[in-house]
Amino acid sequence: MTEIRKHYFLNEYCILASGRAKRPQDFIKDDARSRRPAKDCPFCPGNETMTPPETAVYQLNSGQSWDVRCFENLYPALSPPDGHHEVIVETAKHDASPADFTDVEMELMVDAYQDRFNFYAHKASILYVSLFKNHKREAGASIAHSHTQLIALPLRPSELERERDVIKQLDRCPYCSITKEESGSSRVIFEDQTWIAFAPFYSKTPFEVWVIPKRHINNITCMDSSERTSFSRIFRDLLRSLKVVLDDPPYNYHFLQTIDEDYHLNIRILPKLSIAAGFELNTGIYILTVPPEDAAGFLRGV
Amino acid sequence: MTEIRKHYFLNEYCILASGRAKRPQDFIKDDARSRRPAKDCPFCPGNETMTPPETAVYQLNSGQSWDVRCFENLYPALSPPDGHHEVIVETAKHDASPADFTDVEMELMVDAYQDRFNFYAHKASILYVSLFKNHKREAGASIAHSHTQLIALPLRPSELERERDVIKQLDRCPYCSITKEESGSSRVIFEDQTWIAFAPFYSKTPFEVWVIPKRHINNITCMDSSERTSFSRIFRDLLRSLKVVLDDPPYNYHFLQTIDEDYHLNIRILPKLSIAAGFELNTGIYILTVPPEDAAGFLRGV
Repeated sequence: MTEIRKHYFLNEYCILASGRAKRPQDFIKDDARSRRPAKDCPFCPGNETMTPPETAVYQLNSGQSWDVRCFENLYPALSPPDGHHEVIVETAKHDASPADFTDVEMELMVDAYQDRFNFYAHKASILYVSLFKNHKREAGASIAHSHTQLIALPLRPSELERERDVIKQLDRCPYCSITKEESGSSRVIFEDQTWIAFAPFYSKTPFEVWVIPKRHINNITCMDSSERTSFSRIFRDLLRSLKVVLDDPPYNYHFLQTIDEDYHLNIRILPKLSIAAGFELNTGIYILTVPPEDAAGFLRGV
Repeated sequence: MTEIRKHYFLNEYCILASGRAKRPQDFIKDDARSRRPAKDCPFCPGNETMTPPETAVYQLNSGQSWDVRCFENLYPALSPPDGHHEVIVETAKHDASPADFTDVEMELMVDAYQDRFNFYAHKASILYVSLFKNHKREAGASIAHSHTQLIALPLRPSELERERDVIKQLDRCPYCSITKEESGSSRVIFEDQTWIAFAPFYSKTPFEVWVIPKRHINNITCMDSSERTSFSRIFRDLLRSLKVVLDDPPYNYHFLQTIDEDYHLNIRILPKLSIAAGFELNTGIYILTVPPEDAAGFLRGV
């Protein structure tokens, strides 16, 4: 059972998910779970019975039964009719992550992202589909085998509402402006005809990266074939650069996008290198110890 | 040198603080600093030369040269004329924290909080004084010896601006309502004539606690004598309960308050028991694994 709760007076929400840790002792030193060996890994081939049945699988010409496998989260943050919570295991290899993927592996992952987004986006009462990845325990991954999560929500996040209010006032797309302003700047890490990847002027964490299509499209299913190919390469190369420069850091990445409403897709990669502590909680202001211009230089150098 | 940077189009800010970690290798495994022994602790008596000179000290009748000592942060997030960043070491004892304080030690800490808030609140161009504590490394403390931080800012945090907008629409104080609504509820941990402490219905982390005065006062310097005595006891007891129930967890606490503007002081204690990961970054929605009603029960039971 899950329950969505609203803040006393702001448009903010939390989700009470009772299938998970519940008693005080559950919070006291529990490091064992994510370190189990591959043979006990519930996301490895051969251990499919350790997870709920698959909702979709995607295959390369690899001869394996799956290369990407999707299933409902065993401990969902939301369950029907409130929403859906799916796990997307992007590789059968226990120790691989997208930074290591070949071109075709990366394209298969993007295919799966598009397909699963599309599947949930048009279900009844779904207003937002959150697609995100937590890499490593310090970034919130409870299982070491690489995976992405999708949570389909019956509400629009307040972050997007806040953006929408400002965009209405501006009466133009700020992301279209950003792609033009940052083009060729000292913060650019990669740029081609269709995409720009850069360390944003305003960052919440050191080495934060934004990836934005130059064309104004609502979500990842709107990419055309050349955008899709280019995105797969850029995104993999960015993750690879972060892995090299920061010695495989924990990170989160997530997609800001809408289902049908007018918006400009943008993807954010946030290495977990600092702790949002009392000051950030108190003020919403982030203290940044690396200028984005320097971060971009390090990442471009790979 | 520090620089305040604004988000591309939202009213959100980050602070670029260049005196701190800067190169990629600085982020790769640096666990030594917070674990140095007491004799090398820059916050211990006898090591005062390891920090900038004191800006204030507070004494009990202990015969020590100080019981609370304040000085500018060696690596400030903000420095004049943009702002100020001060460290408040609340105890001379290397291994103590407010959860362990006696009544008089706690009252001295609250005295110091009031005094330092007041000192910075009325400096030129200061619009907000952020007062917060990070307890333990996992909650962002880089030095183990207990301390609080104060950052005086030339801007109002967007969190407070957002609250202000809603409060204007409501045309009443939502915190006054909350103290009445939660009074006697299953979420109350402690309540007397002057204060209420409870696990909020909407929480961002398991075992989050809000502490609110029943009287509508802007900030901690407005407490009367009985409010001040009561707050010292309640606050210490709450920290002690968290220490017992959760085996001395990392936590952050912070004060939401204004300098002169009409507001209702509220203090928030957030144990660091979960990681704000991809979903929280993407949506601003927090997944909560302990119902606040249960958390309050555990904390009341101590």
